[in-house]
Amino acid sequence: MVPYQQLGVKELEEVYDGLMAQYKEFQAKNLKLDMSRGKPDAHQLGFADAMLDTVSSAAGAISQSGVDCRNYGCLDGLPEVKQMMADMLEVTPDEIIVGGNSSLNLMFDAVSRAMILGVYGSDKPWCKEPVIKFLCPVPGYDRHFAITQHFGIQMVNIDMTPDGPDMDQVEDCVNNDPAVKGIWCVPKYSNPTGAVYSKETVERFSRLRPAARDFRIFWDNAYCVHRIYDEDVPLTNLFELLKKNGKADMLFLFGSTSKISYAGGGLAAMAGSRNNIELTKKQLSIQTIGYDKISQLMHARYFKNFDGIKAHMQLHADAVRPKFQLVDRILTQELDGLEIGRWTKPMGGYFISFDTLENCAKRTVSLCKEAGVVMTPAGASFPYGIDPYDRNIRIAPTFPGIEELELAARLFCLCVKLAAVEYYLTVSV
Amino acid sequence: MVPYQQLGVKELEEVYDGLMAQYKEFQAKNLKLDMSRGKPDAHQLGFADAMLDTVSSAAGAISQSGVDCRNYGCLDGLPEVKQMMADMLEVTPDEIIVGGNSSLNLMFDAVSRAMILGVYGSDKPWCKEPVIKFLCPVPGYDRHFAITQHFGIQMVNIDMTPDGPDMDQVEDCVNNDPAVKGIWCVPKYSNPTGAVYSKETVERFSRLRPAARDFRIFWDNAYCVHRIYDEDVPLTNLFELLKKNGKADMLFLFGSTSKISYAGGGLAAMAGSRNNIELTKKQLSIQTIGYDKISQLMHARYFKNFDGIKAHMQLHADAVRPKFQLVDRILTQELDGLEIGRWTKPMGGYFISFDTLENCAKRTVSLCKEAGVVMTPAGASFPYGIDPYDRNIRIAPTFPGIEELELAARLFCLCVKLAAVEYYLTVSV
Repeated sequence: MVPYQQLGVKELEEVYDGLMAQYKEFQAKNLKLDMSRGKPDAHQLGFADAMLDTVSSAAGAISQSGVDCRNYGCLDGLPEVKQMMADMLEVTPDEIIVGGNSSLNLMFDAVSRAMILGVYGSDKPWCKEPVIKFLCPVPGYDRHFAITQHFGIQMVNIDMTPDGPDMDQVEDCVNNDPAVKGIWCVPKYSNPTGAVYSKETVERFSRLRPAARDFRIFWDNAYCVHRIYDEDVPLTNLFELLKKNGKADMLFLFGSTSKISYAGGGLAAMAGSRNNIELTKKQLSIQTIGYDKISQLMHARYFKNFDGIKAHMQLHADAVRPKFQLVDRILTQELDGLEIGRWTKPMGGYFISFDTLENCAKRTVSLCKEAGVVMTPAGASFPYGIDPYDRNIRIAPTFPGIEELELAARLFCLCVKLAAVEYYLTVSV
Repeated sequence: MVPYQQLGVKELEEVYDGLMAQYKEFQAKNLKLDMSRGKPDAHQLGFADAMLDTVSSAAGAISQSGVDCRNYGCLDGLPEVKQMMADMLEVTPDEIIVGGNSSLNLMFDAVSRAMILGVYGSDKPWCKEPVIKFLCPVPGYDRHFAITQHFGIQMVNIDMTPDGPDMDQVEDCVNNDPAVKGIWCVPKYSNPTGAVYSKETVERFSRLRPAARDFRIFWDNAYCVHRIYDEDVPLTNLFELLKKNGKADMLFLFGSTSKISYAGGGLAAMAGSRNNIELTKKQLSIQTIGYDKISQLMHARYFKNFDGIKAHMQLHADAVRPKFQLVDRILTQELDGLEIGRWTKPMGGYFISFDTLENCAKRTVSLCKEAGVVMTPAGASFPYGIDPYDRNIRIAPTFPGIEELELAARLFCLCVKLAAVEYYLTVSV
């Protein structure tokens, strides 16, 4: 195919007319499809339905560890659940708190506590500092950025590479600017690019010398077991490296089973050094008497241990793989050679990151919407919703059925083309 | 019986020797009893065990309202659960958020949001004010006071009366001091006195004219359905009165099923005016994608509606009534006429509030502890843990079995007597 850039105005206009005719056909279908959020589909959710059978009046609600899950207690989680989640996050049970169903909530609370009280080693609460900054690898996870914005924390864009955040930029900021108190990281199968931080990237994280003594890496390992193919891309263990360097307090780890068991009823965990976890538990004891232990019991009985989780993830991999492959195939069929878009080929996680031509992402998403396909808003994967190049779009292929997904992907490609042709026509004028 | 105060030193010493002999007998029993926290016992928890049978792979996880409870969504709760909890708190479904298992957590989060962002109508975040104060009716709930202390909010003691907080004091503070931003209230079967706010008290609350435009009443209606006897003491509806007076935004309501279904797996709710709830939902959407809906589904299927909850509470009333009666009977048998203690006779809730002689509460609790019975620490029901008279002790009779409870209550009375005699001997010297 000929790159659009090489077409003249007349050719572009012809292409545009053809695309618009196709677009109108799509509009006539009255589609109502959603590729906006990383949600499991009903088939995937069904994989864990036997979890619902693990509790009953006959089976009772006493955990293997002897805890009556119906009563108060166990602020940091049932022992067996702590063990399971600790194994998943590669920490020990005294380095973890299992709390509630939402790791986002645990991250929000961690930032909130830091603002109000400071973290272990803080001279004062973060809210007493004139300016606080967080580094935000972009494109990244919109809900991370929403938390930092909510607390009035200034966000600094850091470029993502296939190996993780640009570590030159990270080191420059962290090691020199004492206002930089944190960085958001999704180190494995990153949201949205799917990148896995390389060994070198993780090693450079372990050697950071923060200007702020209470700097924290927010290591959101949301997709640690979410490979799509047989091959799992290994992530170097940052916590271990930091321990060797005597800097273990610098790390907050997070994870959840939201995309393992149920998005609407999973378990979340926060982990870190004993200093961090002891202080967090002390502060947490003001906030709650304990999290829901019936849900913890269900997870303990169903998965049994981390091996159970790993086995379960094969089902998810088999379910989502065809969807990722389908989208990649359609993107290739429709766009290859036109030089109007690039996209990632993730080995795990929930997203494909797509870059249109510069200045074309908003228009593409808007065209999709007008034809009944909802994408994540353009810019969402950047702090303040501002993509400086207006080119990044996050594709979430898991929720729609395979036929709907094919339609949505075809429409998406059409909109990418339309926006690109419109753009070239505008700049040709 | 002769009041201890009328005894001479020699008589007191004789009494002391007799009591000490009994005390040593108790110590020899190596008791390990706990009357410290308001926890349901295993028998009570069993009342809701059929709730565990409501979910299964066969029954699925689609709510009556058509929501797949396994997936993301429903930030403010399943519609049917919102209706049930709204009926319990006497609000409408658009005036409520059902969130998580802990109303304490919802209160903590409400204060946290107020500190960081302010509430509806705030000029600025509470943390930007030079001083913030909360009124704390005493004796009151220790975990409320822990929250205010955590956020550095200054606490002002307000005397509790059998009709609720001393409203002269409340009006004086709220209507004149713009630093007063909140008051903690457990309006029905109050923790720990069991008082139900009278009609007049509630009416006076509805007529407050706060000096701070963003003043909030934290109405923790934790025991709204927790009567002990057949007779339920009605609570005047403050929200309705405030609405009539155009002051509905002044109220945050809280409730939970922690002592209805499971303490370790119940549902909590926050309610208030649409202004308050809309703003809260907006802020909450940064904190979480949604709370655990499997637990919500279980509650919806088991209780069905508020009538189901009310019927269920009869079981709890029947279970705890004998314990409250037993403690009251033993206190009366052991202490009547000695003039060394007064206690409340609650019609509902989870506690009996006991006042020793002044300066005797800490010693009484310490004597109990040394004989193997853990009470709530003396002073816990006051801000900063400081009971200015050192006389209040909270008795939580629900958790121990009936035989243990009798032993614990007898020992408690013995310790009250010992502490009183010691005190009179000291002041006689």
